[in-house]
Amino acid sequence: MAAPIKRILTGDRPTGPLHLGHYVGSLKNRVELQHQYDSYILIADLQALTDNFEHPERLGGNVVEVALDYLAVGLDPERVKIVVQSMVPELCELTVYFMNLVTVATLERNPTVKEEIRQRNFQRGVPVGFWSYPISQAADIAIFKAHLVPVGEDQLPMIEQTREIVRRFNALYGRVLVEPKALLGEVARLPGTDGGAKMSKSLNNCIYLGDPTEAVQKRVMSMFTDPTRIHPTDPGHVEGNPVFAYHDAFNDDRAEVAELKERYRKGTVGDVEVKQRLFAALERFLSPIRERRRAFAEHPERVREIVVEGTRRGRAAAQATMDEVRAAMRLNYTVFA
Amino acid sequence: MAAPIKRILTGDRPTGPLHLGHYVGSLKNRVELQHQYDSYILIADLQALTDNFEHPERLGGNVVEVALDYLAVGLDPERVKIVVQSMVPELCELTVYFMNLVTVATLERNPTVKEEIRQRNFQRGVPVGFWSYPISQAADIAIFKAHLVPVGEDQLPMIEQTREIVRRFNALYGRVLVEPKALLGEVARLPGTDGGAKMSKSLNNCIYLGDPTEAVQKRVMSMFTDPTRIHPTDPGHVEGNPVFAYHDAFNDDRAEVAELKERYRKGTVGDVEVKQRLFAALERFLSPIRERRRAFAEHPERVREIVVEGTRRGRAAAQATMDEVRAAMRLNYTVFA
Repeated sequence: MAAPIKRILTGDRPTGPLHLGHYVGSLKNRVELQHQYDSYILIADLQALTDNFEHPERLGGNVVEVALDYLAVGLDPERVKIVVQSMVPELCELTVYFMNLVTVATLERNPTVKEEIRQRNFQRGVPVGFWSYPISQAADIAIFKAHLVPVGEDQLPMIEQTREIVRRFNALYGRVLVEPKALLGEVARLPGTDGGAKMSKSLNNCIYLGDPTEAVQKRVMSMFTDPTRIHPTDPGHVEGNPVFAYHDAFNDDRAEVAELKERYRKGTVGDVEVKQRLFAALERFLSPIRERRRAFAEHPERVREIVVEGTRRGRAAAQATMDEVRAAMRLNYTVFA
Repeated sequence: MAAPIKRILTGDRPTGPLHLGHYVGSLKNRVELQHQYDSYILIADLQALTDNFEHPERLGGNVVEVALDYLAVGLDPERVKIVVQSMVPELCELTVYFMNLVTVATLERNPTVKEEIRQRNFQRGVPVGFWSYPISQAADIAIFKAHLVPVGEDQLPMIEQTREIVRRFNALYGRVLVEPKALLGEVARLPGTDGGAKMSKSLNNCIYLGDPTEAVQKRVMSMFTDPTRIHPTDPGHVEGNPVFAYHDAFNDDRAEVAELKERYRKGTVGDVEVKQRLFAALERFLSPIRERRRAFAEHPERVREIVVEGTRRGRAAAQATMDEVRAAMRLNYTVFA
């Protein structure tokens, strides 16, 4: 008998369309993983609310955009469940139960949250929702009984927090929940087009998966390169040069990349040619994505159906877990039986 | 046209059967208020979980006991909605939304929570659920759009916290929620049978509404009285004497109470007689309560129906509010329309 297929949970906050950084960092991986795992992908609007609660109107439109990005990169709606978080209210219920299993002191110590609070500038002080998001994230993972959560090193404390909560729940109430493991891949980071550490909407240094040809061209041709090189005949640096980082990540013509690097180091190729080749490579990469995106966008009722059906299946899984949770906690009162 | 009837919210944590202290402090008031207000009464098992999460099995049985106590004291199931909190998961949803509207610093300052944390001895530190319960209590009040919440002075900070959250919600998202007012009555306090400040299950100084005659008799005859009085012929103190506090609260024969007080002060009546008269008075008070309790207890299907129907109506009100909340927050995505 085959072992039961393992479940993974991933997701994105719907605060904007997805870009090449998302592709390199997680989407590419998810497309591969969908063949081996039972995949739930959360469009995490509740989590996005924790630092966008003053502008919830920003989320609605992005829910559909993110779903389109998923479908465009090749996530197969027959294989993955695309689940809109706020449409699964059982997540809030489990969050409230989990809040009894974590102390204030434990949350205060979470290094990931500390760093993220530092990065944000909450005018009125840190909201309880943001500060406690490791608890709701644990509920996200636990309610779907995910075995694996693909994360980068910096997210390990979050998975550890989830494991602690699950262990405590199971010890107090009985073995209901699954202790998840981090699926630690080398999480590839793509620099921004400005050479900054990563793409970020607020830095205006992104190439979006849905960008049209002209936008990609404009963005590539104005990319930062090797700041130490003045003339095309100067020997240049390939390492730390964002244009070559993009070539490495997206150019399927490996021979061309090797040749360009050699010529760049020798000072026998100009930035313009390297960028033109990158633009061509990105177009080869983005064209089928753009094409799938266009095809789905032309059938909004089909996209709607996929999101509604994914959410329905996700909610059914969540409800099944919550039935077990309530029974284990003896909250399944006979008066309501 | 008559003004719309105002709504009040009250409730109890189902951690044990209700006693004479509950009657004097709130139940008596609720029985009177049920004629003037649209009354929702919450059996607050989610809140009870915040400091009973290690023993959730203690709650289930008490849900029915508390409902029986309500019916026994004369709460009319045609007038009041008896709502089991954990069966209204929308409360958890609103709690999660409210968590974005309160800062960590604000919660840290809440004097009522500080005092209650001090009283409890959390072995592993303060759980987030207990520490943040003003937020879920605000959700309880707001989801039913209660205009009035009957409370004692010590609970005023909780109502003020609710008003702040409601104001912030309405300012950010539009006027959906009702800013509740405290219905400050003189909250009468009944001392314990041991003369302690109040009845408390853990102090074993309670007379329960459901206690049989013999239990009441035993408890009354062993009550603390005036510790300065040695002989029945010594002049005694009426003030601060728990037996007379009970006479004041429960003896419907006011002439008898006046006469007993006079004789007690003069030293012409013994403790035994004063207690026997109290026992007789409590029996007059408790007999119809006991009788109604017995009658309902004989028809568990009727009690079940009352609790299920009250909860159904409570949940319908909560769902109606949440539809408005989600629309105001723009979380009513067209993809799910």
